[in-house]
Amino acid sequence: CSSPPTSTSSLLPPSSSYLDSRPSFSHFPFCSSLLFRSIVLGMSEAICGIEYQSVDATTEEILRALIDGVGADYVVTPLLAWQDAPANATCSTLTYAPARADGEASAQDWHSCVVGSAARDLRLYPAAAATSAHLSLTALLMPDLHQAHGFATTADPSNTSFSLEYLSTILGSPIPSSSCLWIPVQVSQWRAWSDLHCATGWHAAIFPVLRLSAAQAWGNDAQGAVDEKIVRRWRGEQVKAILVEAPRVKKGKGSVPLPTPSPLLAALSKAMVAIGAQCVLTVPPKATMPGARAAEFYSALLAEMRTWRPDTGGADAKESFEAPYHDVLQSPLQPLADHLESATYQVFEQDPVKYRLYREALVEALDVDKRIARDKVDTVVVYVVGAGRGPLVRATLAAAAVTKRNVRVYAVEKNPNAVHTLRHAAVRDGWGDVVTILAGDMRATGPPERGHIIVSELLGSFGCNEASPECLDGAQDLLLPDVGFSIPASYSSWAAPLCSSKLYTEARSFYIDDALGVAGNTGESGGRSPRRALETMYVVSIWNADVLTDAAELFSFDHPTPQPTNNDRFASVTFEAPYDTTVTGFGGYFECVLYGSVHMSINPASHSPGMFSWFPVYIPLHTPLGVAAGERVTLRMTRRSAAHTRKLWYEWTVSTSGGQTTALHNVGGRSHAVGL
Amino acid sequence: CSSPPTSTSSLLPPSSSYLDSRPSFSHFPFCSSLLFRSIVLGMSEAICGIEYQSVDATTEEILRALIDGVGADYVVTPLLAWQDAPANATCSTLTYAPARADGEASAQDWHSCVVGSAARDLRLYPAAAATSAHLSLTALLMPDLHQAHGFATTADPSNTSFSLEYLSTILGSPIPSSSCLWIPVQVSQWRAWSDLHCATGWHAAIFPVLRLSAAQAWGNDAQGAVDEKIVRRWRGEQVKAILVEAPRVKKGKGSVPLPTPSPLLAALSKAMVAIGAQCVLTVPPKATMPGARAAEFYSALLAEMRTWRPDTGGADAKESFEAPYHDVLQSPLQPLADHLESATYQVFEQDPVKYRLYREALVEALDVDKRIARDKVDTVVVYVVGAGRGPLVRATLAAAAVTKRNVRVYAVEKNPNAVHTLRHAAVRDGWGDVVTILAGDMRATGPPERGHIIVSELLGSFGCNEASPECLDGAQDLLLPDVGFSIPASYSSWAAPLCSSKLYTEARSFYIDDALGVAGNTGESGGRSPRRALETMYVVSIWNADVLTDAAELFSFDHPTPQPTNNDRFASVTFEAPYDTTVTGFGGYFECVLYGSVHMSINPASHSPGMFSWFPVYIPLHTPLGVAAGERVTLRMTRRSAAHTRKLWYEWTVSTSGGQTTALHNVGGRSHAVGL
Repeated sequence: CSSPPTSTSSLLPPSSSYLDSRPSFSHFPFCSSLLFRSIVLGMSEAICGIEYQSVDATTEEILRALIDGVGADYVVTPLLAWQDAPANATCSTLTYAPARADGEASAQDWHSCVVGSAARDLRLYPAAAATSAHLSLTALLMPDLHQAHGFATTADPSNTSFSLEYLSTILGSPIPSSSCLWIPVQVSQWRAWSDLHCATGWHAAIFPVLRLSAAQAWGNDAQGAVDEKIVRRWRGEQVKAILVEAPRVKKGKGSVPLPTPSPLLAALSKAMVAIGAQCVLTVPPKATMPGARAAEFYSALLAEMRTWRPDTGGADAKESFEAPYHDVLQSPLQPLADHLESATYQVFEQDPVKYRLYREALVEALDVDKRIARDKVDTVVVYVVGAGRGPLVRATLAAAAVTKRNVRVYAVEKNPNAVHTLRHAAVRDGWGDVVTILAGDMRATGPPERGHIIVSELLGSFGCNEASPECLDGAQDLLLPDVGFSIPASYSSWAAPLCSSKLYTEARSFYIDDALGVAGNTGESGGRSPRRALETMYVVSIWNADVLTDAAELFSFDHPTPQPTNNDRFASVTFEAPYDTTVTGFGGYFECVLYGSVHMSINPASHSPGMFSWFPVYIPLHTPLGVAAGERVTLRMTRRSAAHTRKLWYEWTVSTSGGQTTALHNVGGRSHAVGL
Repeated sequence: CSSPPTSTSSLLPPSSSYLDSRPSFSHFPFCSSLLFRSIVLGMSEAICGIEYQSVDATTEEILRALIDGVGADYVVTPLLAWQDAPANATCSTLTYAPARADGEASAQDWHSCVVGSAARDLRLYPAAAATSAHLSLTALLMPDLHQAHGFATTADPSNTSFSLEYLSTILGSPIPSSSCLWIPVQVSQWRAWSDLHCATGWHAAIFPVLRLSAAQAWGNDAQGAVDEKIVRRWRGEQVKAILVEAPRVKKGKGSVPLPTPSPLLAALSKAMVAIGAQCVLTVPPKATMPGARAAEFYSALLAEMRTWRPDTGGADAKESFEAPYHDVLQSPLQPLADHLESATYQVFEQDPVKYRLYREALVEALDVDKRIARDKVDTVVVYVVGAGRGPLVRATLAAAAVTKRNVRVYAVEKNPNAVHTLRHAAVRDGWGDVVTILAGDMRATGPPERGHIIVSELLGSFGCNEASPECLDGAQDLLLPDVGFSIPASYSSWAAPLCSSKLYTEARSFYIDDALGVAGNTGESGGRSPRRALETMYVVSIWNADVLTDAAELFSFDHPTPQPTNNDRFASVTFEAPYDTTVTGFGGYFECVLYGSVHMSINPASHSPGMFSWFPVYIPLHTPLGVAAGERVTLRMTRRSAAHTRKLWYEWTVSTSGGQTTALHNVGGRSHAVGL
């Protein structure tokens, strides 16, 4: 394994085949809609809707007013007019009248411009779900999670959590396959929402929407500091919308002054729009067809809401590069088994930071390392192991020029296509005798001479997960004993617990076409869970997630090793939950010392600024773990390899101080392993 | 549904077909062995083994000494002689020599009289497992869970829990299909064991054995009180053996005095032998062939250990009736759909308590009820609804005789076979005109007259779970308005959380032949868990279980109801964990007021003494919930019915104050429902 290709964590476009072929609720509610602007890239405005609570106008009238007048992108409106019924009546004995006829709007408008509302009474849900399916609506707004419900003979005494009645009702009728449910919750009720979602088996078509009263949303006094935790924990959920109640329009003349968003709304809208939430203005009952003065006010408010931009943390090159890949899971590469494509090399070579760091490390080594000091060594022999299309060769030559050192470079590469490119480069760039290109596997041919430095870029997102330790152990015979050294000199693997409904449900459905041919995202936790999908480490730009703590170090490796034996490792790290939350998995990162003071890292706490060659890995769990504030969460992980099967894999299990322990994941590499 | 047969919770023999047809590790290790006495019934002695820790005699010599000399039932002995190896060597680089040749004993003796030991070093496990499979051993003793293990490069820093190395090792090699693993743990280390077992996915072939040092086991001072919790929590595990270290034999002459078991050993042995644990005497290394004096001492100790009897809590009729049914899950009956067999009626009629309670209730009613006072009513009209073979008719006639009241009894029965028996009884016992037998469904024919009392025995183990509310609502038209009443007058459903590894693993494999045809008890939690099996309420004599708290009331029903409407119910009850434990499910019970002061109950806190007609129900969970001492566990349950599908079912979900919430079980009755 002496010449694997350039590293690794694939950045191929997210439209690769596995994404197209599997059904995904992540596209709902509005990705398929013509009227709704894409939020993926270049987004300049938030998507805004308006919620009407009464039915005193036809859908046609509403849509005309909506698009031509108020200027919302879509409307949320009741589907059924409720015949008042005794409080103890059940679904089956109640009567209702459809409030909407399907001829009132085109099929496309129903699909694109209308979210159905069943918000008035839980008992409406079965009928509303049927109507929603009939009209191909993309979303159905449910009653508020904590609204009083009427039909339980024995009321659920708990008011801090969801009611069993609510849960049983939404699971009791089939959710239309093209639709999803919006569950309105208060901002402070993360736990109730999370418990409910968990009890649905993390149903992939049930989403939270955050409801803010006018008092919460608007306030000219920007006094109160916002509890950052409240916003942070919603970052881990797939919040589809913020429903903001409009202030009352007081009687009077002239235009109504625009209110200022409260600090809570300001913080929340930034964070939620960033993860794809839309903004909905809820107007008072009986304001379906508002007077001109109110309409003007709502229109102005919607215009204000459009300006709520995602808080992307700066629009640098890294950010715009990564945006299309947010939360897109990618199966880890098998760099030793496969040849990378030219486009992949090109993507990696575009990184503005990585090769600068390598150059700086080489400069520092050539300048100050006593083992190759100028008075001892005239020509420094450098092996570039896995030279690819040559970026590390160029970095070496540049460092030699800066330090005015003589070097002799051996570029070792097993991919014949990349060797071809290297030979072209040697001619074009005039590498001459300084660079020797060695094609093929070093282990078979033997080196022409021993070297002073091995330079390699074999790290995976998790550090050792693409067999860098094994490869460098194998390559260290290239070095002069006691003199030679490696760049990188050492590296380590790090992990941090996170809460992400998005990543959990995406991972669960990842290998959906495999084996059983059964959908993994039906929201049913029992039946046939795709174990393989929940035991694989994914490369992913972690975005719609609440990373709960700083990362902790698991494994570390130094090169060269005095006596290469075994790179198996056991590690155990403990984190403390900062607040009540749910651990759905872990983010995995690496830190690396290239040489001396030159570090390279994708650990969030020390991330090399602007570097985008690696996304983190997502380490999933079979089942999310609910934990309380202060509870300790221990991740135990082993890195194992088997010589006879030439495999490298990780196993892991998580325990909490509250007494939960997961099964050991990926036993014996049964679900995911890297070939050696 | 006016004439369902006699109640219900089936007591058919446990050898019914589903048990025979499914593989079950519960038979291991020794049920199939000729040498080992059955512990099921009439057990008079504990089963005892002896553990040798060295290999200085052949198996043949050991077995001869064992059976002819010391008097143990089986021997625990090392399988492999270890070639000492460097501490950092891995399994694959170590060498060992087989300590035993298979010709040293017969195949039957290997299978019946030898437990293999891999206790000396974890690295021996893969080789020992292979040897164990070759010799068809039924069990393999593993290294102590907390023994120091040598081969991790990075040691697991946690010493309060299992090491990942241990876990990964036992799951890394296949467990021979006919065998099981014994994991020795300290009595105080329940949590470490439970975490380990959970991390194996509750593997059905991995069991704990409890290891007691000589200091813990023997003490002439019976001073220390035993912490009851320590013993109680092992009651929820499938403890296969207690390994008791023998005291050292001091030099001297004459027989060695027998030590007294410590209070801990005394309490533990009673509780563990009751759930099937065996007793193993561990003798010092190099005592494989002890001198005559030591052999005599060990022999005497083993004779003492044989007398450790199960603590059955009294050998009354109920106890001896129930013993064969301990932990045998039975699918609930469908009493409305099926006709009971005569043998089933006979089993229920043997209950010495149940019909006495009914008679006492009828006596009290006939004596004191003002609605049917002697000065108002001359002849009391009694409807026995679901008369079966007539026990409630007899109870009514007996109560009339005691109170000297005139009665006219209508015995309503839908099962034509039982009607036949009733007609014979009428002739044989001279019921004459007093009793009228009404065959068939009351709803079709209409009653000859209105009655004063309806007597019924329609309760299931969970009270309302065999449709008693629906049946009695339908039957109450038989009663005179404002005058008539029902025996039972009311009843309620109760539940208590429990920890039971046995019931969880049994339930998980219950529907093993169904649907997927895949074994559910492979210990793998991910793949294809038999959801249906873990959403069904089972009738079972709960035995190898730690019932954690008193039961709490969920649903209640009164009869007759003023205006029968809907028997759907929602309930939520909260329990507090008494210590760190794992909730694997709930026990379900009923309480009932027959009439006035006459109560009938299977709730453990108020169980009618000596009554055995009902076993509790076991309400399982998809996944056990680990909880800490003091944590609150909330069970939310709904009783629902659907008129159009004529089904009755329960749904449930459990939340903990620590933040765990299970999926909603049995949504819409998908896995288990009772026909109406």
